[in-house]
Amino acid sequence: MQTTSGHVRQASAKEPAKRAPFSVEVVAIGTELLLGHLDSNSSWIGEQLALAGIDCYFQTRVGDNVERISEVLGTALQRADAVVTCGGLGPTQDDVTREALARLAGVDLVRDPALAAGIEQRYAQRGRAMPTSNLRQADLPRGARPIPPSTGTAPGIELELPTGLVLSVPGVPSEMQDMVGRHVVPALVARAGSRAVIVSRVLRTWGLSESAVAEMVAPRVEALDEAGNALTIAFLASGIEGIKVRLTAKAADHAGAGSMLDREEAELRRLLGDRVFGVDGTTMEMAVGTLLEARGLTVATAESLTGGMVASRLVSVPGAGAWMLGGVVAYDTAVKHTVLGVAEDEVVTAGAAQSMARGVRSLLGASIGLSLTGVAGPDSQEDKPPGTVFCGLSGPGSFEGHIRLSLPGDRDGIRQLATISALDWLRRKLV
Amino acid sequence: MQTTSGHVRQASAKEPAKRAPFSVEVVAIGTELLLGHLDSNSSWIGEQLALAGIDCYFQTRVGDNVERISEVLGTALQRADAVVTCGGLGPTQDDVTREALARLAGVDLVRDPALAAGIEQRYAQRGRAMPTSNLRQADLPRGARPIPPSTGTAPGIELELPTGLVLSVPGVPSEMQDMVGRHVVPALVARAGSRAVIVSRVLRTWGLSESAVAEMVAPRVEALDEAGNALTIAFLASGIEGIKVRLTAKAADHAGAGSMLDREEAELRRLLGDRVFGVDGTTMEMAVGTLLEARGLTVATAESLTGGMVASRLVSVPGAGAWMLGGVVAYDTAVKHTVLGVAEDEVVTAGAAQSMARGVRSLLGASIGLSLTGVAGPDSQEDKPPGTVFCGLSGPGSFEGHIRLSLPGDRDGIRQLATISALDWLRRKLV
Repeated sequence: MQTTSGHVRQASAKEPAKRAPFSVEVVAIGTELLLGHLDSNSSWIGEQLALAGIDCYFQTRVGDNVERISEVLGTALQRADAVVTCGGLGPTQDDVTREALARLAGVDLVRDPALAAGIEQRYAQRGRAMPTSNLRQADLPRGARPIPPSTGTAPGIELELPTGLVLSVPGVPSEMQDMVGRHVVPALVARAGSRAVIVSRVLRTWGLSESAVAEMVAPRVEALDEAGNALTIAFLASGIEGIKVRLTAKAADHAGAGSMLDREEAELRRLLGDRVFGVDGTTMEMAVGTLLEARGLTVATAESLTGGMVASRLVSVPGAGAWMLGGVVAYDTAVKHTVLGVAEDEVVTAGAAQSMARGVRSLLGASIGLSLTGVAGPDSQEDKPPGTVFCGLSGPGSFEGHIRLSLPGDRDGIRQLATISALDWLRRKLV
Repeated sequence: MQTTSGHVRQASAKEPAKRAPFSVEVVAIGTELLLGHLDSNSSWIGEQLALAGIDCYFQTRVGDNVERISEVLGTALQRADAVVTCGGLGPTQDDVTREALARLAGVDLVRDPALAAGIEQRYAQRGRAMPTSNLRQADLPRGARPIPPSTGTAPGIELELPTGLVLSVPGVPSEMQDMVGRHVVPALVARAGSRAVIVSRVLRTWGLSESAVAEMVAPRVEALDEAGNALTIAFLASGIEGIKVRLTAKAADHAGAGSMLDREEAELRRLLGDRVFGVDGTTMEMAVGTLLEARGLTVATAESLTGGMVASRLVSVPGAGAWMLGGVVAYDTAVKHTVLGVAEDEVVTAGAAQSMARGVRSLLGASIGLSLTGVAGPDSQEDKPPGTVFCGLSGPGSFEGHIRLSLPGDRDGIRQLATISALDWLRRKLV
């Protein structure tokens, strides 16, 4: 084990001494992955497989080399029932996954006329000249089936071999994620023995430990266990971004799976309450923005130790202009006094936090002022240890107040935790 | 290939059709790595191997399972001369790398009395009771040598087998990096055929493409090629953080390597000029802070599209209080007018950038005001497309002016590039 965080808890994540009946390996292809480039694709695919209940015991990275790719795939199919590869499906000469699959299968590459026409058409629509090399993306190992892309131009490849199934997807993250979610995971779940439609939904929570979430949700997990495995719940700790609760429904069709998920989401929200801040790709700052916009409120921030991180996360949301006015970074104590009108001498205090929130709300003319002041470290300040943070709110009615936090970690960790803690506090006030 | 960025360019990074005489594999151990946890350790080790000129063709991830770890190591040693493993050396029951090495070697584990005493002593010094299970970290496969830790309590393991060399390091990044830099890379370089001391230094540049850096440095690369391979230069593109130029010197001792690096660094700085912003771990914001502090200047920021990212990077530097006063996030146009005194109606302009810089400098009483205004997208603004950014400076003498940037990418990419561009512009003004 490398760290204690970031693992999925579910039955299928346990490692049995003997191989399970069905397992899948992930092979990431690209020389740059061997030279320092972070392989986030494999991690993402690994998470999707785990959450779908599919066992994965090995992941491999290999360079853009036909011989070595086919060797790795051969080794993987000795150990597993199926392999997912990502990368090496682009149009350039160093994209050789197609050739490696053909070599593995002992067949030649043939150009698929329908794929070629589709690629040409996409270029024509954009009024751009297509490099001829792009048509390489229409080549398939004889006997393979294309996985159609919904974005981009690179199709994936599905290749059935006597030793197992190979599913190849592009390395561009957005295209990869689309194809894995839409085709690869359902195909593997079906192969693993299920013929049903599989649909997932992630509830994102903040402010609870993984074990606390598990405890709160336990009644539902037990009820679902008793009801069979048509609907399962898995937990994933995502560092400072909170705990994800993933629901996976198996049903005869999408409508059936959707209504199972709707019912279960309602049950879980009843247990988890306002700790759920969003669904699937919703971030904390998106959740805050949606609530502000719905209530016709605007916000301004006053930050000391976070130095603009709260403001920056809010501004990152497209359309933030409707509810985010801006803020003041008051890192220097004098700036807290002169710009924000803080009267307190000591600035790592509840009073100073409250004054900062009031000051920025008034200066920028916002409905709500949100502030943070504290000690990021490495040194103590005003006799308070690193991790001591006060957040303040100023606004109409219930939007007045402060909280005190004691956060763990180094300078960077404290600043990040302070940022999301403040955003979550505002969010829960807005709910 | 997965993307076009982030690759090391040097002879050893090319992939020959046949295996090179000496190669190394990386095996990352930890079940969480199969379930979505990002494997940054392997990427870091891969980069170190590449920069040291050691070929690496495969990387594997495997869970905390004795049987599967030893199987993967066996496979790797069939293909390569040596294997570096990371992870699974901690004190808990799921840390089983030691057991897997013993199984692979067909030997038992024996407790090393010196290691055990060292671990006990470290706990005693901190006045803490040691869990007995911690002594598992003193167990070694019979015949293996410990790699002493300089931090942490987990020693590494060096195991010589008939099929090759295994070097196992902990998965905690700081301990891993220390042990790889201090012991693993030198041991592998020596094994690859060199008996010399190897020392590296990274010059960090910003504002140039990889090919431009290569062109500027070409005279030195040629001169070094002619002089033999005692000193080599490699390039590494690190995304928005610029291009790294890595010098690696081989010499009889550290002093000799150090003076070779000093001489070559001076030569390269002559060619690259102020495009070099730092050495090794120096970040852009640290470089800016060091220059400000040396000149006794303070800075304040005024940000629109970056929403506090520039301020946040400056505040992230420990000791930033000496030169960073704070800033204003003026995302809303009205805030630019009322708080910063911008008179211009159009705010994505050079004039508005200049006014913002003047306004924040005056409001916060800083020596220098630095501003950014522009279009992050997805929509155009004031008839200017996403990526249009103006930076302004206000301060004594040469610290007055503006620049216009046209940045590529999506909303997030544009904001990040704008941030580092503005910091680099201020840095070069300060040099």
